[in-house]
Amino acid sequence: MTNSATNLRLKLPVACIILEVIIIILFGALVQYDDETDAKLWHKEIANGSSNYDNDFYYRYPSFQDVHVMIFIGFGFLMTFLQRYGFSSVGFNFLIAAFALQWATLMQGFVHGMHGGKIHVGIESMINADFCTGSVLISFGAVLGKTSPVQLLVMSVIEVTLFAVNEFIVLSVLGAKDAGGSMTIHTFGAYFGLMVARVLYRPNLDKSKHKNCSVYHSDLFAMIGTIYLWMFWPSFNSAVTAHGDDQHRTAMNTYYSLAACTLATYGLSAVVAHDGKLDMVHIQNAALAGGVAVGTAGEMMLTPFGSMIVGFLAGTISVLGFKFLSPILEEKLKIQDTCGVHNLHGMPGVLGAIVGAVTAALATKDVYGDGMADVFPDIHSGDVEASFQGVRQAISLAVTLGIALLGGLITGFILKLPIYGAPPDTICFEDGIYWELPGEEGSHEELTTVRTPDEAEKLNA
Amino acid sequence: MTNSATNLRLKLPVACIILEVIIIILFGALVQYDDETDAKLWHKEIANGSSNYDNDFYYRYPSFQDVHVMIFIGFGFLMTFLQRYGFSSVGFNFLIAAFALQWATLMQGFVHGMHGGKIHVGIESMINADFCTGSVLISFGAVLGKTSPVQLLVMSVIEVTLFAVNEFIVLSVLGAKDAGGSMTIHTFGAYFGLMVARVLYRPNLDKSKHKNCSVYHSDLFAMIGTIYLWMFWPSFNSAVTAHGDDQHRTAMNTYYSLAACTLATYGLSAVVAHDGKLDMVHIQNAALAGGVAVGTAGEMMLTPFGSMIVGFLAGTISVLGFKFLSPILEEKLKIQDTCGVHNLHGMPGVLGAIVGAVTAALATKDVYGDGMADVFPDIHSGDVEASFQGVRQAISLAVTLGIALLGGLITGFILKLPIYGAPPDTICFEDGIYWELPGEEGSHEELTTVRTPDEAEKLNA
Amino acid sequence: MTNSATNLRLKLPVACIILEVIIIILFGALVQYDDETDAKLWHKEIANGSSNYDNDFYYRYPSFQDVHVMIFIGFGFLMTFLQRYGFSSVGFNFLIAAFALQWATLMQGFVHGMHGGKIHVGIESMINADFCTGSVLISFGAVLGKTSPVQLLVMSVIEVTLFAVNEFIVLSVLGAKDAGGSMTIHTFGAYFGLMVARVLYRPNLDKSKHKNCSVYHSDLFAMIGTIYLWMFWPSFNSAVTAHGDDQHRTAMNTYYSLAACTLATYGLSAVVAHDGKLDMVHIQNAALAGGVAVGTAGEMMLTPFGSMIVGFLAGTISVLGFKFLSPILEEKLKIQDTCGVHNLHGMPGVLGAIVGAVTAALATKDVYGDGMADVFPDIHSGDVEASFQGVRQAISLAVTLGIALLGGLITGFILKLPIYGAPPDTICFEDGIYWELPGEEGSHEELTTVRTPDEAEKLNA
Repeated sequence: MTNSATNLRLKLPVACIILEVIIIILFGALVQYDDETDAKLWHKEIANGSSNYDNDFYYRYPSFQDVHVMIFIGFGFLMTFLQRYGFSSVGFNFLIAAFALQWATLMQGFVHGMHGGKIHVGIESMINADFCTGSVLISFGAVLGKTSPVQLLVMSVIEVTLFAVNEFIVLSVLGAKDAGGSMTIHTFGAYFGLMVARVLYRPNLDKSKHKNCSVYHSDLFAMIGTIYLWMFWPSFNSAVTAHGDDQHRTAMNTYYSLAACTLATYGLSAVVAHDGKLDMVHIQNAALAGGVAVGTAGEMMLTPFGSMIVGFLAGTISVLGFKFLSPILEEKLKIQDTCGVHNLHGMPGVLGAIVGAVTAALATKDVYGDGMADVFPDIHSGDVEASFQGVRQAISLAVTLGIALLGGLITGFILKLPIYGAPPDTICFEDGIYWELPGEEGSHEELTTVRTPDEAEKLNA
Repeated sequence: MTNSATNLRLKLPVACIILEVIIIILFGALVQYDDETDAKLWHKEIANGSSNYDNDFYYRYPSFQDVHVMIFIGFGFLMTFLQRYGFSSVGFNFLIAAFALQWATLMQGFVHGMHGGKIHVGIESMINADFCTGSVLISFGAVLGKTSPVQLLVMSVIEVTLFAVNEFIVLSVLGAKDAGGSMTIHTFGAYFGLMVARVLYRPNLDKSKHKNCSVYHSDLFAMIGTIYLWMFWPSFNSAVTAHGDDQHRTAMNTYYSLAACTLATYGLSAVVAHDGKLDMVHIQNAALAGGVAVGTAGEMMLTPFGSMIVGFLAGTISVLGFKFLSPILEEKLKIQDTCGVHNLHGMPGVLGAIVGAVTAALATKDVYGDGMADVFPDIHSGDVEASFQGVRQAISLAVTLGIALLGGLITGFILKLPIYGAPPDTICFEDGIYWELPGEEGSHEELTTVRTPDEAEKLNA
Repeated sequence: MTNSATNLRLKLPVACIILEVIIIILFGALVQYDDETDAKLWHKEIANGSSNYDNDFYYRYPSFQDVHVMIFIGFGFLMTFLQRYGFSSVGFNFLIAAFALQWATLMQGFVHGMHGGKIHVGIESMINADFCTGSVLISFGAVLGKTSPVQLLVMSVIEVTLFAVNEFIVLSVLGAKDAGGSMTIHTFGAYFGLMVARVLYRPNLDKSKHKNCSVYHSDLFAMIGTIYLWMFWPSFNSAVTAHGDDQHRTAMNTYYSLAACTLATYGLSAVVAHDGKLDMVHIQNAALAGGVAVGTAGEMMLTPFGSMIVGFLAGTISVLGFKFLSPILEEKLKIQDTCGVHNLHGMPGVLGAIVGAVTAALATKDVYGDGMADVFPDIHSGDVEASFQGVRQAISLAVTLGIALLGGLITGFILKLPIYGAPPDTICFEDGIYWELPGEEGSHEELTTVRTPDEAEKLNA
């Protein structure tokens, strides 16, 4: 499985080291501790009457760590379902996430406002960087198994940049709310990735078809990812909402949405799958759609009742998408969406944006009281009507879709250049191209448990 | 492995969707945000001088997430030890937990007191719902591999309801303390499940005997569950105790109890197992008994010394139970306890209840000081003597055992109806009945690593 | 695989039970709740105006749980990379960690100062005990696969004791800072373990060579350990730093160091590995070196820029160590370092100590402001110059190396006695010696997926 076209001895080191050196230089020139991480500045606040216990570290860090687990374990293991692509799923997820969070700190710092020419970093910038990284990992899901790590790094460079621009337009220019990122993270990441997958369409991918599926143990590894994403999604949606009732409510709405979504997923899966059996693909993915779909409205007064309805709908459209829409996307639109991100992040993200727009349009002072100031500051201040806030939300969805699709298109063409060591059609979904695999040489061969036909043949020869 | 009796195409969707629709309607009619999650109400408290940092979210949510991990990863993966039942272990655990936490919110809301006809929800109700779910999952352990998901949902409906009733009697009527649920969660769940298993006794289960055991990798997956349960048990026992020293002390007592229990487990396992070797069943289960056994007394002034003695005893009786009692339960009492919940939750739960009664009876003002008000409010107020608090605790154990056994009996007979798609005796402990398994068709068959004799034969034919 | 020399029926129970009984007696005689866990004492503080929300539980417990996950899941699963040693990796890790945290509570209590003849315990003692345990687990990595659990327990008894002594000298006598333990945990654990491995050198270990490597699934299990260590390292380094900016800054510095380290690791791995492919050994280990290397300086004003440079260097030397230094250590110095702890903890620990010394020497009032009191109290008080603090740090490194090497030497000779049931050279790295393995008897043999040549032969006979 050695191939000069996919040999990364030069390409990957050059990409990693150049990118890291650029990042380090930019951090040296531009990044500073914020008021809560700088020894001198924080102690000035202490001198002015603050307590160390007021440091935002204590009110955001547990959520940050939950989000961190979702990014590295959740996304990483969710993608290990492929029988022979576990090293790459976890490993490339690890690589591009470690890169993207650094790059995102810079890009988000640039567009969200600098402080005297400097980017200030602290727990909020760490959470936001992880969020941006999540978007890149969603796109990774669409092209999983068909891309080299160098391509993925290049994709991350562009996608993170456009993410920051889109996020700035949606949150700061348009004044929309999207704390859990139904639009900015899920919709953006999904449609960006789908467009990249479209441009990178491989007509002969069926030559790797026998590897584009799971085995028993790989599905169990994937369930580790699913369950972690499911459990910690309440932390994800609430990680950057306002303190107090807002964080509390967002976490709870997400919890209920996911629970209802799970019941819908199991019910629908047994309906549409073969022989009334359950399909692991649905369970691993659609059960999470409830978290995506309350990413915008979760911080609003959606009520547990509303959250459950949204979750139920999200699970339903996600299972139906896997069953009926994905084959059409592949055959008609030539979009080979390895992980089905359209069903987990795309449609539920759009649903979440719509739910958010409607919920915002219905906001009243009677329901929110003074809490309106946290959730909808512009309605509270009287600058806009609730209905107009709904319009802002809807426009934000359209802008997000536009930037994602256009960005994905351009990125796809850049990634199509034959210089990144992408795998040939015949050996996609195969770790052996980029990883030294155990058990391929030496006297312990008889102990390995998984073997491709080719390898088996070689051994028997 | 297709069988019309076990085909769930209609049954599972009907069960899932009807149950979820009922839940959503009841939530719509009855459930409201509490003071800490409602935007308007919380901001009234803010107007009255509270700070957002006082919101209970910050003092309970990290514990909640640890409990959540125990419920979904801990219980789910602990049960993956069976060689060919990993999808069902994690997957049905996921399904019934997602259902039970919603249903528990309603049932616990009903019996624990409504507010103007409404159930108020927030972080405490979320933790309590997860606790109740834990009890159902313990019962699931007793019937693992022998029940359909529809049976499990029906069991959950009844068990959650009875759990709420028992919890109300024990905590509110009898005034017992049981923050970590030695009685209400572990004893209740174990004896309920054992009685269900008794009624569902399968005389010909030995036809599936070859699948009722582990393989190398399945035991490693199970260790993920064990270790997470072990690590986060301090959070479980302390999640709903009073703030301050109580939560702090409960977590620490549990930590010491578990550490001592682990040493006892390894020591005893090497004594009783074959050839002085360690038995994974003991390590996976008995090492956790220390957490169960301080579920009641953990919040009391048990001291680290006392906690370690309790943990050591719990590990000892648990290993001995696996070795000597479980075979007797199966042969004489016809209780086929797949996961040995009697050894992990049953006996250690009873031990925990007794330790709690004794520790309560010995409580003195001299030891507790003003802290008595948090741990034993009725002793503090002078309403009862410490010795009487001990009696209350003992009565609570008896009540719990009674309701669990009677409830399990009735539930068992309901589950015995031949309408739920239960597996036949010959294919218990087998994912293939309810799940589309990978690697059963198509050209990639030679890549699968685990194969039943039947499948192998078919392939070779 | 039964062997009277390795039969632990008597040895392991005696070791576990005697040690646990000694611990319980010492806890009974010496250990007391501290002010924050004792009901009476804490309520005295409440009476004096404290709030329950001031209890340190809320500001340390989330970090503690992250550290706990690193100890039990992180270290445990990281070592499951060996194809046939997963039970022992997770299981012995579990055993010795559960023992060491109890023993460490006593030893650290003795040397760090008793209160009226009593050791006071609370969340800080729990974190410190877990830290000390981490050091033992690092040493375990050096001797993995070649030692019996009884040897490991004996090693833990001695190592924990010496750890406490060294920690006392470094932190209390010399006044060095080392919150994340570059010196006291990583350097100490690594060189202690390497010296033990040197004394236990096995010239005929190549007879077990075919088992001293990974298989596909074992590498995926190991990645669970790696990723958890990576994610939670910010919590590790910040768990016991001062509250406020210190914890916040330490976590963030570690986060950036690890991210930069990961890029360096991937880049270097592709350079040095075969055919430009990535090597799992590097990814699993070297990507973590960035956390080790900011263990001392993480709490200082290292800046994100400085943290990234340190992380980048740490990843680089770690990969190069695996490639070029480990073979030399084994061939020339006769140190068989199973997990390569020299590359992950040894060299990066020394690097971290040096970075800490330099950063301390450069500390100025201008940069730290009043925060100097938390990070360098002796510089703040004017007792020492910054440059002298740097000297103290450097001396601490030398002392740590000295105690570790000498302690490891003595421990090695004690462990060499032929009474602990150590495995013979021919069956190292093999679970079957100490564990009842599934699928070795009974009718389900054909279902097991991993089989040694010996077993296969027996079956075919």
